[in-house]
Amino acid sequence: MKKSIDVCLSPQLLGLFDISRKIVVVVDIFRATTTMISALAFGASVIRAVSTVEEALSLKNHGFLIAGERGGEKVEGFDLGNSPFDFMNSGIKGKSIAITTTNGTLSINKSSHARKQIIGSFINFSATANYLINLQSDILILCAGWKGSVNLEDTFYAGALIEALERDFVAPSDSCKLAASLFWQNNMNPLGFLEKADHALRLIRIGFDRDIAFCLQRDLHDIIGVVRNGDVMAMSSI
Amino acid sequence: MKKSIDVCLSPQLLGLFDISRKIVVVVDIFRATTTMISALAFGASVIRAVSTVEEALSLKNHGFLIAGERGGEKVEGFDLGNSPFDFMNSGIKGKSIAITTTNGTLSINKSSHARKQIIGSFINFSATANYLINLQSDILILCAGWKGSVNLEDTFYAGALIEALERDFVAPSDSCKLAASLFWQNNMNPLGFLEKADHALRLIRIGFDRDIAFCLQRDLHDIIGVVRNGDVMAMSSI
Repeated sequence: MKKSIDVCLSPQLLGLFDISRKIVVVVDIFRATTTMISALAFGASVIRAVSTVEEALSLKNHGFLIAGERGGEKVEGFDLGNSPFDFMNSGIKGKSIAITTTNGTLSINKSSHARKQIIGSFINFSATANYLINLQSDILILCAGWKGSVNLEDTFYAGALIEALERDFVAPSDSCKLAASLFWQNNMNPLGFLEKADHALRLIRIGFDRDIAFCLQRDLHDIIGVVRNGDVMAMSSI
Repeated sequence: MKKSIDVCLSPQLLGLFDISRKIVVVVDIFRATTTMISALAFGASVIRAVSTVEEALSLKNHGFLIAGERGGEKVEGFDLGNSPFDFMNSGIKGKSIAITTTNGTLSINKSSHARKQIIGSFINFSATANYLINLQSDILILCAGWKGSVNLEDTFYAGALIEALERDFVAPSDSCKLAASLFWQNNMNPLGFLEKADHALRLIRIGFDRDIAFCLQRDLHDIIGVVRNGDVMAMSSI
């Protein structure tokens, strides 16, 4: 029997899915999961996803760099924001990072009862797809969305991943068909379509234009972001 | 300022929207809201949306015909099921009907705090669109979905309505863009696309093939289905 994929379009709908025997792919394209893959590719040893600013601050005393945003902007007193560019430098190498974001870290924590969790992004798209093809497990793609609302960029990623996995998986649900249709309709020009998404407009308004284009680049890195007890770590794809 | 439209893709996400000053268009294409419009077109005087089988049964003693489904099938002891064809006969004329369905009636009851509620279907599509164009109010399209899950047919209707209203309304949210994209991608062949939707397959399995095609027909009737205190009534479009 073929393995199956499903899509949860908002963390508020996660209760509809039994994830105890599934791999959950948490995706927050703009920007949390993209930023995490960037940080891991630049050598961060571990990224701890925490839900609150207070948790992040308490980890600063334990040797963590602390990172994250509220309303898109870096939290005051934090070492780093939530832009992937903040993490693309040699100062990241070997560091432990605690990060808190509006949607992405919340979704990681909310799906911690999954059989296994990984994080998804376009910048390690093929490595992730190949990893999933080689595992014997059903998948749920969990779109982080925006404060409970469905968003375009995470749904578009879900559609792209469904398309990449369609030879090895069945994706029969309406949510899968909705995501796949969004992908097909807009795949000729992802940037032109997704730069008009709610959160892209929000980020552009506060000066993060270049983050949008960056987060839609494919296959810059060949690592997989695996989550173990809330800690995201790089796993080589080989 | 242009009026605005938004889409709520599942009743489980309704808490994200302030509907106290909006018209809510409740849509359950397969089949509740289509069936209600059919019944009103054939002369039913009022349709009361009730959440439970027990409520429906208690109304039988007060002169109501009782209708509805569980798992798609007519409830035992009920006068009518939830197929639009059940209501297309002269026995309906002048009757009060109590109906309970899995998703549609629930969504009507869950959004009763809206400024105003109407029900949407393809069989009275243009009458509904013209009615909304002539009112000074923002709109939320509430997709009934399936037991909390997002479905294709209600999302597709939302996309169609957004397209019909785009000259008079703005529809800026990601949910609107998602619905509109689904509509554009599949509008050449709605039946071919939507007969593969989860709930269409479920209905076909239990013998309701012809309902699917019927529910996708446009503009059979020229009435609007308005909701007043849980009662759905026909309003002439003129």
